[in-house]
Amino acid sequence: MNVQTPRLLQSYVCGEWRNGSKDGKELLNAATGEVVALIDASGLDHAAALEYGREMGGRALRDLTVHQRALMLKEIGLKLMEMKEDFYTESLWTGATRADGWVDIEGGIGTLLTLASKARRELPNAKVIPDGAVEPLSKDSTFSGQHILTPLQGVAVHINAFNFPIWGMLEKIAPTLIAGMPTIVKPASQTAYLTELMVRRIIDMGILPDGALQLVSGSAGDLLDHVTCQDVVTFTGSASTGRMLKTSPAIVENSVRFTMEADSLNASVLGPDAGPGTEEFDLFVREVLREMTTKAGQKCTAIRRAIVPADYVDAVIKALGDRLAKNVAGDPAVEGTRMGPLASLDQRDEVRDRIADLKGSSRIVLGDPDDVRVASGDAKKGAFINPVVLLADDPAQAAANDVEAFGPVVTLMPYADIDEAVALTHRGKGSLVASVFTDSKDVAEEMVIGMAPMHGRVLIGNRRSAKSSTGHGSPLAPLVHGGPGRAGGGEELGGMRAVKHYMQRTAVQGAPHLLSAVTDIWSEGADTRADKHPFRKSVAELQIGDQIVTEAREVTESDVEHFAHFTGDTFYAHMNSEAAQANPFFDDRVAHGYLIASFAAGLFVDPDPGPVLANYGVDNLRFLTPVYFGDTLQVRLTCKEINPRENAEHAEVRWDCRVTNQKDEVVAQYDVLTMVAKDWP
Amino acid sequence: MNVQTPRLLQSYVCGEWRNGSKDGKELLNAATGEVVALIDASGLDHAAALEYGREMGGRALRDLTVHQRALMLKEIGLKLMEMKEDFYTESLWTGATRADGWVDIEGGIGTLLTLASKARRELPNAKVIPDGAVEPLSKDSTFSGQHILTPLQGVAVHINAFNFPIWGMLEKIAPTLIAGMPTIVKPASQTAYLTELMVRRIIDMGILPDGALQLVSGSAGDLLDHVTCQDVVTFTGSASTGRMLKTSPAIVENSVRFTMEADSLNASVLGPDAGPGTEEFDLFVREVLREMTTKAGQKCTAIRRAIVPADYVDAVIKALGDRLAKNVAGDPAVEGTRMGPLASLDQRDEVRDRIADLKGSSRIVLGDPDDVRVASGDAKKGAFINPVVLLADDPAQAAANDVEAFGPVVTLMPYADIDEAVALTHRGKGSLVASVFTDSKDVAEEMVIGMAPMHGRVLIGNRRSAKSSTGHGSPLAPLVHGGPGRAGGGEELGGMRAVKHYMQRTAVQGAPHLLSAVTDIWSEGADTRADKHPFRKSVAELQIGDQIVTEAREVTESDVEHFAHFTGDTFYAHMNSEAAQANPFFDDRVAHGYLIASFAAGLFVDPDPGPVLANYGVDNLRFLTPVYFGDTLQVRLTCKEINPRENAEHAEVRWDCRVTNQKDEVVAQYDVLTMVAKDWP
Repeated sequence: MNVQTPRLLQSYVCGEWRNGSKDGKELLNAATGEVVALIDASGLDHAAALEYGREMGGRALRDLTVHQRALMLKEIGLKLMEMKEDFYTESLWTGATRADGWVDIEGGIGTLLTLASKARRELPNAKVIPDGAVEPLSKDSTFSGQHILTPLQGVAVHINAFNFPIWGMLEKIAPTLIAGMPTIVKPASQTAYLTELMVRRIIDMGILPDGALQLVSGSAGDLLDHVTCQDVVTFTGSASTGRMLKTSPAIVENSVRFTMEADSLNASVLGPDAGPGTEEFDLFVREVLREMTTKAGQKCTAIRRAIVPADYVDAVIKALGDRLAKNVAGDPAVEGTRMGPLASLDQRDEVRDRIADLKGSSRIVLGDPDDVRVASGDAKKGAFINPVVLLADDPAQAAANDVEAFGPVVTLMPYADIDEAVALTHRGKGSLVASVFTDSKDVAEEMVIGMAPMHGRVLIGNRRSAKSSTGHGSPLAPLVHGGPGRAGGGEELGGMRAVKHYMQRTAVQGAPHLLSAVTDIWSEGADTRADKHPFRKSVAELQIGDQIVTEAREVTESDVEHFAHFTGDTFYAHMNSEAAQANPFFDDRVAHGYLIASFAAGLFVDPDPGPVLANYGVDNLRFLTPVYFGDTLQVRLTCKEINPRENAEHAEVRWDCRVTNQKDEVVAQYDVLTMVAKDWP
Repeated sequence: MNVQTPRLLQSYVCGEWRNGSKDGKELLNAATGEVVALIDASGLDHAAALEYGREMGGRALRDLTVHQRALMLKEIGLKLMEMKEDFYTESLWTGATRADGWVDIEGGIGTLLTLASKARRELPNAKVIPDGAVEPLSKDSTFSGQHILTPLQGVAVHINAFNFPIWGMLEKIAPTLIAGMPTIVKPASQTAYLTELMVRRIIDMGILPDGALQLVSGSAGDLLDHVTCQDVVTFTGSASTGRMLKTSPAIVENSVRFTMEADSLNASVLGPDAGPGTEEFDLFVREVLREMTTKAGQKCTAIRRAIVPADYVDAVIKALGDRLAKNVAGDPAVEGTRMGPLASLDQRDEVRDRIADLKGSSRIVLGDPDDVRVASGDAKKGAFINPVVLLADDPAQAAANDVEAFGPVVTLMPYADIDEAVALTHRGKGSLVASVFTDSKDVAEEMVIGMAPMHGRVLIGNRRSAKSSTGHGSPLAPLVHGGPGRAGGGEELGGMRAVKHYMQRTAVQGAPHLLSAVTDIWSEGADTRADKHPFRKSVAELQIGDQIVTEAREVTESDVEHFAHFTGDTFYAHMNSEAAQANPFFDDRVAHGYLIASFAAGLFVDPDPGPVLANYGVDNLRFLTPVYFGDTLQVRLTCKEINPRENAEHAEVRWDCRVTNQKDEVVAQYDVLTMVAKDWP
């Protein structure tokens, strides 16, 4: 019994919660049919919301560094995790079981936390982000180039699907906010109560600057008519709606970035080596079943086509049948329910219609779409449907390559050889994900490389990863999510790739000292300062370009002999004149690379206690000219980048280290990585 | 006098040169009005050409490695450079002076050679390209992810503009072919004879596989109706045509990658510090003039808006006037001509119409669009127009922010402060490039970061780079070319970024040994082999996963003391117990990082002459756990990547080097880079 009054959902725009101008459409509990919320967004001034986001949210976010933005998200994520049970409660209304809700709620918060953490590890604590290395554009170091990323100065409008009301929002707003762009979230109405609840909680925390996050609960109205080239629109949902939005006038006219992620006809392939009795066979059957029943198959990444060696089709049907017998749909609010209803009765009708389409070229081998059996819940008012398995005898021509039943439905497709299996995956015309179950390196190589051009993600299922694998259907924060063709051609997630979707890449060219002023990275030809040893400077005093040019030191035969015997590195090029001369790269015995780097440190280090705390690494070390006995080494060490840690008393400081010989040839070039105290008494 | 018969241009499709089914449209010499060529592509079967490209060209290119493809392009580029005078001859017909032709011809061939060279330096010699690092997805190394790039299995259709018939083709086909994708080039008819001549020469070389390069000389007909999600379409030209193509049904329906590069209203800003008498002032005036006269201003990157401190407007007009007086248009075939005609009489009419539009909100201060004076050539039959400078008194409202005159026309815009200058550049609603002329770091920083979100490229003009700067208008192979909004939202060039536009990024997940089978890169958890010391194996024998686990070695206080005094690195953390303990990262004196790496080499090196030729570098070295006196070190060295050089007797071999202590904690982790002989007796 529903004892509560339906919640009237509000939109959060221009800094306040607002009701729509109409009464609101009823949103129903998927399992019981009870009214749980009312939704309406009519009468909102979308142009004003966009402008509010740009002016208030955008400016405030751009005033922060990447790490400061990421720390806000971390704080939000940790607080959301504490109140997760509130989200689980409303998640049940969507038809999601506890396990389904975990993917949406904890998966979503986890994605936000992962991206916030990666941003602080992988991006500098800055407002302008370098993209790639400095490109020298002149021989005399008077003209160079560097790509930079700056936040787009618009709003990212995220139009989300009904199946993941929380994950769908968080996986998009996290990279957007890290990039420094404000967002407007427009969830699908069907399950918008859950999104609204979370936005309300986030706003109440008071962590985000005003205008950074707005919410439209209801129709987007004319929102997309007001977007400019600095805005971004992302869309997750049906391909037909996506194509309509993508070609809307303002988006086309202004070349607005439009990222689309549409449901696709994802395939899973049982390898030819993975016959009945193998672990991979069992893993495949389990995965197909899991993809059918999780969220009752309402996932854009779900397996719609199971591509199986012709000889194993019967065995797969039998194994699926045995397992499906134990899976009966029910009310997710009831303990032990493994599969919930679809999100709405409309969805159930839609799925039944699509199954009818599929039946034109395939036959049902398991299940009955019209036979509603439930373990709990209301079989009439709830949107229940039980799993259906079809078999396509002529898989290349099957409707399953073009028709999606967005529910617990899979079509089995027999294949003869790997070429045919690859070709069948391609018949989906572009998918978010495919998987192959195999214990063979050859099968993995051939199938994955064959499928890759048509897929945004490919999972290999195998006994060795059986316990740790996150499975076919799970997009992960560090990996891209999106696919070509039918899947929409978009790309989300993928670690810090996701952040860059909300930034403009700009190639900057100029004299190095001016380039450095823009990027805060010293490069060859930029200004330097040599007032005192830079190791005597704390971050408070240190500037990029601070430099020391050391004394010179000769490398003798006895140094090399000594180093060789001390370290044990008696490689022939250092020890044996004849063998060294036979080497195509050397004229005679050469000094060890590690000896050069060690002597270089001896030359540039300032020994006394000071603000430099540790040398934590070296990057891009290249030995460019052999060092022969009698050569002298000199080091030029220049402060290149200063990256202060937001929550610590030090900065990571990167030094350009160039070692030259007496002919001024560069012997070695590398970055020395140190930690330097922010202050030093 | 034109003594030659007009050339009948042909298309090269499905492996042969074909005439159109009609007589052909006349193409005229821009300076003399004489008919130089006839063009028609009607009757071609475009669907067949696409299928031919996919089946013949695509398969053949994908059978090659990236380096093999790049070497083909290098050979083609060098041969084209030898025959460059033939291209200069026909380039004159387009109205291009020798200097204009240089940009198109040698600039184009140079771009192709640069990309071919960068591909061999920056990408592995492989068919599958890794994108980013391996992502560990489980704690026990049984499940990892890696992004890979594979060539799209379609055709890249390049629809090019009339102004750079050679550069426009080569800058696009070079990255396409390196990626492993075949191309169809469709030049603008007006100057297609030059493109056709070069394609003919390239085909005659017999270097490219059949189907890798096709040419449509004439209308594209229904070509774009047949594209699929594996094809790519690029378009350079007017925004209106671009938008029409971008929304064509097959492109939208199949989410075809569509890259648009449209003319934009690029701005150049004179810094507030760069008043008359400064070098930057002179550089700015020279650059504005150069951008007006090069190709008679027919460049998508030309300066259309010159944004000038209000106080310096008069001085700029005077300086431009002095210089423009010396620039009279003429026949580029005549020695000494500094500026040629526009590409056609239609173009001249178009430019005059746009100047009329500009005059609604600005006034002409230099030049007269209707006064045709020529130093040579036919003033009536030739498409001549002389430079025109306008001044917008209310620059924010000027038509110049929306109207492009694609000729030698610029509008001066006065500004009061830097915020206003930045805002004016944004009024262009997205541009390919902007420049700022300044000798001030503050101005450079503020202007560049302010302009960046609206621009694909920003050039800083300055005295220090005066001689080496390639200028406002020149896209460079290593830097991205493209811009947001009005500029089309596309991105070309940018070094190896360009190649990736023609490849699909796919996240691959699985057990590391299967992932390695796909990527040919060993990662933690993948299979290893320890049959003999891997330094005894030539590339013929070596496999990824070949591994040595060394003996252990203790690090003593006397080792550290000895190393400190030998190298001179007596940093306090190694020498002074009290100071080391005061350091937030150490409990006591620690061993030098370079000592650890040196001892590690002593442990893993096999000293005798053998196939390992040299250690040429180290990547991503991180010291992860301090090493105290009495700790013992052990090294595990594993062959990670083998990258054979196409034209040498060795491969670059990357080794995963992990140094652990007696507690099995990782002390240091890095990649050791070596060169290994392909064969060893």
